[in-house]
Amino acid sequence: MRGAVLYAPGDVRVEDRDDPRIIEPTDAILRLSATCVCGSDLWPYRGLDAVQDPFPMGHEYAGIVEEVGSQVTTITPGQFVVGSFFASDNTCPICQAGYQSSCINRVGVGENGAQAESLRVPLADGTLVATPDLPSDDLVPSLLAASDVLGTGWFGAVAAEAGPGKTVAVVGDGAVGLLAVLAASQLGAERIIAMSRHEPRQRLAVEFGATDIVTERGDDGVARIKELTSGLGAHSVVEAVGTQESMLQAIRSTRPGGHVGYVGVAHGVELPGTELFFSHVHLHGGPAPVRRFLPELIDLIWNRRIDPGKVFDLELPLDQAAEGYRAMDERRAIKVLLRP
Amino acid sequence: MRGAVLYAPGDVRVEDRDDPRIIEPTDAILRLSATCVCGSDLWPYRGLDAVQDPFPMGHEYAGIVEEVGSQVTTITPGQFVVGSFFASDNTCPICQAGYQSSCINRVGVGENGAQAESLRVPLADGTLVATPDLPSDDLVPSLLAASDVLGTGWFGAVAAEAGPGKTVAVVGDGAVGLLAVLAASQLGAERIIAMSRHEPRQRLAVEFGATDIVTERGDDGVARIKELTSGLGAHSVVEAVGTQESMLQAIRSTRPGGHVGYVGVAHGVELPGTELFFSHVHLHGGPAPVRRFLPELIDLIWNRRIDPGKVFDLELPLDQAAEGYRAMDERRAIKVLLRP
Repeated sequence: MRGAVLYAPGDVRVEDRDDPRIIEPTDAILRLSATCVCGSDLWPYRGLDAVQDPFPMGHEYAGIVEEVGSQVTTITPGQFVVGSFFASDNTCPICQAGYQSSCINRVGVGENGAQAESLRVPLADGTLVATPDLPSDDLVPSLLAASDVLGTGWFGAVAAEAGPGKTVAVVGDGAVGLLAVLAASQLGAERIIAMSRHEPRQRLAVEFGATDIVTERGDDGVARIKELTSGLGAHSVVEAVGTQESMLQAIRSTRPGGHVGYVGVAHGVELPGTELFFSHVHLHGGPAPVRRFLPELIDLIWNRRIDPGKVFDLELPLDQAAEGYRAMDERRAIKVLLRP
Repeated sequence: MRGAVLYAPGDVRVEDRDDPRIIEPTDAILRLSATCVCGSDLWPYRGLDAVQDPFPMGHEYAGIVEEVGSQVTTITPGQFVVGSFFASDNTCPICQAGYQSSCINRVGVGENGAQAESLRVPLADGTLVATPDLPSDDLVPSLLAASDVLGTGWFGAVAAEAGPGKTVAVVGDGAVGLLAVLAASQLGAERIIAMSRHEPRQRLAVEFGATDIVTERGDDGVARIKELTSGLGAHSVVEAVGTQESMLQAIRSTRPGGHVGYVGVAHGVELPGTELFFSHVHLHGGPAPVRRFLPELIDLIWNRRIDPGKVFDLELPLDQAAEGYRAMDERRAIKVLLRP
């Protein structure tokens, strides 16, 4: 099969890789309908995360089950399924508490490289969620989004306790930030402030439910959020970047007693304890337990109540993955869908 | 009046100070029945917090209202009252959300020095809570404890979401940690693990409801908590120290999806972002909004359902405050009550 492999920073190649096969009796093999490039793929692409090269890339996927292992009982060949970047048994106490991405038996699906024609997914019963039927083509991008960016933005909004009566601010205008706006809107937030200085992303934020746009960043951004909230700060702030600046911006934009939901993979972040102590915020986040939300998200997509697939503003054949990475790296695209 | 003043690290003197008087029309003047030395008083006493010397000490208080300002409407002379270390209006949106210690009009009561015969308390209506009647003498230590250590331990347990079915671990065996054990027990926790290596404190922890004692610290302490919780970590961990080691011990002792309630005033803490991200814990804490809990705590004490005053294992006349500081500094006493 064909699959994307990172050879060195900036050097992604689509090449022939071995077809995946069942290894554990709990595995499933999917033929992927669509896959995509994640903001977090840019960390190794930019040389900011060390990886052992060559490394198969991609961890977002949706497609048709081709084969299942002997112990798989609920997932069957022919189903269209969506899964998360962490495979989980969905039965351990951590999964049962809704933290499947910290499942005691979790396996990183990304190690198998989802930017490919086919993919082996471990712990298929616990990881994959089937759609009610085979989806029409136009639903596939949104279902793919549920695999990570939608689930991650959703978790950010849930962790920030977005809901009725709340003012929610979102730091970060990547696909995850934009989908956190959508999630906050679905969760009933009263006011949603998207922090973005990029006009096409601002437009999409408004389409997803943002009521205000703040273009300032850092201390100026914090001051603007305070201005918009009677000097108090937002009730809920979603952090969807992962840098020191964005984390502090999120914490400082939150009122005492408010909630920060942080889903940007932390890079070089050191939180000052005294400031955090006196900020009085709730802080929660981490790798999104997408599996917790998948049934609900699939249902919303299936019934066309949300259209998260709009974050894909560039679609390319899998073989042009390198161009997809370049487009995201240069911020020419919000998110790139790859068709195997 | 007599009052304790810090002249330099290690140098606390009780001397004549000006009698407090009404300054703002929202003030009250209390004649204190009891006051005490706080773990946080030891930071400046040990020279670890810079203060401008000489500095009046103390922020925990309970006593009889002597006089109120012209705008005070609910508190009246003759009442026995308890208040928190932060005066709050109890009406602003932050107070109404339960974060009175971040009230937009908050005033630090400690600046007036509560280790004294009398005390001016700002924002009396919002800050002070009266008991149903004048308390009998034996209730005074417990009512005094409600002013800070009990309220702080309680907030730690609430922030850690201690409750039925939960395993709660408490890092720190000072008065706040011990009262977090009491709070977890009152909140219905199933199992309460006190981390302590001091036999008298272990005894009190068990009396307050601890079901297990862990004597190990740091990584060994974390390993022991994991052993006691099927490898998962506690659901809820209260941090009641405030150092880098204790914060990491608390975070690492918590299972993914669990809650850390941190109430030790942070000193030199820098939280590593990547570890925090992948820990999947909820983190909440800060200066306890004691006022939120005072009515409930006073009720529990008044009806003799809890006896938090047991943390006072040394009682001295106010004039011997210096010996009280020494006893706590040398860990000869858990907490020292001072009688004006």
